[in-house]
Amino acid sequence: MTAKVVVLTGGVGGAKLVLGLAGVMAPADITAIVNTGDDFRHLGLHISPDIDTLLYTLSDKANKAQGWGREGESWAFLDALRSLGGEDWFLLGDGDMALHVLRSHRLAQGDRLSAITADFAKAWGIGLTVLPMSDDPVATCLDTDVGMLEFQRYFVERRCVPAVSRIRFEGSEAAVPAPGVLDAIGEAEAILIAPSNPYLSVDPVLAVPGMREALRDARAPVIAVSPIIGGKAVKGPTAKLMAELGITPDNDAIAAHYAGLLDGLVIDEGDAAPGNGIPVARTDTLMTTITDRRRVAQAALDLARAIGRR
Amino acid sequence: MTAKVVVLTGGVGGAKLVLGLAGVMAPADITAIVNTGDDFRHLGLHISPDIDTLLYTLSDKANKAQGWGREGESWAFLDALRSLGGEDWFLLGDGDMALHVLRSHRLAQGDRLSAITADFAKAWGIGLTVLPMSDDPVATCLDTDVGMLEFQRYFVERRCVPAVSRIRFEGSEAAVPAPGVLDAIGEAEAILIAPSNPYLSVDPVLAVPGMREALRDARAPVIAVSPIIGGKAVKGPTAKLMAELGITPDNDAIAAHYAGLLDGLVIDEGDAAPGNGIPVARTDTLMTTITDRRRVAQAALDLARAIGRR
Repeated sequence: MTAKVVVLTGGVGGAKLVLGLAGVMAPADITAIVNTGDDFRHLGLHISPDIDTLLYTLSDKANKAQGWGREGESWAFLDALRSLGGEDWFLLGDGDMALHVLRSHRLAQGDRLSAITADFAKAWGIGLTVLPMSDDPVATCLDTDVGMLEFQRYFVERRCVPAVSRIRFEGSEAAVPAPGVLDAIGEAEAILIAPSNPYLSVDPVLAVPGMREALRDARAPVIAVSPIIGGKAVKGPTAKLMAELGITPDNDAIAAHYAGLLDGLVIDEGDAAPGNGIPVARTDTLMTTITDRRRVAQAALDLARAIGRR
Repeated sequence: MTAKVVVLTGGVGGAKLVLGLAGVMAPADITAIVNTGDDFRHLGLHISPDIDTLLYTLSDKANKAQGWGREGESWAFLDALRSLGGEDWFLLGDGDMALHVLRSHRLAQGDRLSAITADFAKAWGIGLTVLPMSDDPVATCLDTDVGMLEFQRYFVERRCVPAVSRIRFEGSEAAVPAPGVLDAIGEAEAILIAPSNPYLSVDPVLAVPGMREALRDARAPVIAVSPIIGGKAVKGPTAKLMAELGITPDNDAIAAHYAGLLDGLVIDEGDAAPGNGIPVARTDTLMTTITDRRRVAQAALDLARAIGRR
């Protein structure tokens, strides 16, 4: 398949799908549009967790067991930081610091996040295009039973314990898609939504003005890979969050969430299809091995091809 | 001795004297006034090499064999930075990064370098007072045969190879001594000038407006420890620099350089005293072991006591 494919993605789950995709088609034809709602400043550094997860995963540097950060990471920086009384709730590995320091330095010099990300991907030999959803700041903020929390404070510092009542994407109304985002969507033959958290990882991408319109206007079918397996989200706080928001964690909810955008849904072979009659493909959607990732990616591509251009 | 002592100091050589001093008197009575002319911004981080050398030396974290940085340092950050194409001429160790990141973050929040340095010293259990010469930016710049070089570019990147014709301290005219500096000088019973490079490490301190006047007005005698041993500077580019500036590397030159400020000079036992008749003390001034450092510190204190208040 030489047709171009776009993936809207958050961090870990999305990176697995993108890696699988790069195993079944030409990486040069893949564009990953990555959530930056999790981005935040910490110790004066600009940290882009989802972009970093993509970069580590696609350059084979990711710590697979841990699910974040670099394989073989060391922690001398954090140890020294602790000895100085610095904030240590966000775990910054020694090697990991390079991305944050260089990114922050270049942003301060006026470079765009998209240009910096492209340079990082090129330096690490990543053959596909990794685009932030926007070069403008968007901050995922959660109203919780302990007050408003920025995403990393909720996700890392509080370990998703607070009950969430509302999710907002601050700054999104003023954000514009990063250079290349709308063109990639327009030129794609398939648009995939990764099995990332729909509310925390995909919604920030969809909240960037122009993004929903571009997806609706695209000639390519939009296919989501459901993050639900057996009534549970595979990873992270998706199921807990859905319960708190009063949503049953099933494929009906996923289909409803992406209503108006979606042309097809890849679901786990053990789960019920949504009742709205949307075309589905079934496979084992748990992406443990690289074979799993390729299978799920291929299932999504096959469904897109079966549906064809709109 | 319970009297208060001030040391004007650069990095490595000065840190040895200060450490020796802390072994022969109460650390709480010592104030080190540290050169910040070497400070620079690198990758967006504010780096204070001489302050860091003091902090590492006084908290027993210094890499003694290497002469800079931390003992047992690791280099994952630098390796990752290189892999991203980042500038790697200045060697930033993983643990070392904690000082730079936290300092830069706090400076950006409006904290003063002196307050940050005090907090670092306290966090690491350093019992003496470490003061930057100024909270204001002063940059040691060298006119050389390859053009103007900032200090670290000359010292680290170019390894002191370019021939120096002139040394300037940019920003010094607008700098004021850091809080505590003038009081410490006024209250001291002895003021020592460490055997740091007079031109590159001590002169920036003396270039801060008010510093020379405070030294002249001080009741305490000003004693320098000569950096010359047997017609050579012990460490670094001092002798080469003196030759380039047309100065014979001997104690006459040191005494002449500090003329008008100095009440006594500690010289190596093998070297000739300056011809100007200034009181001298002789000892083996090579500070290899902690015993050496204490001996040199004690010699300086003894000379100060022998000279007494002005």
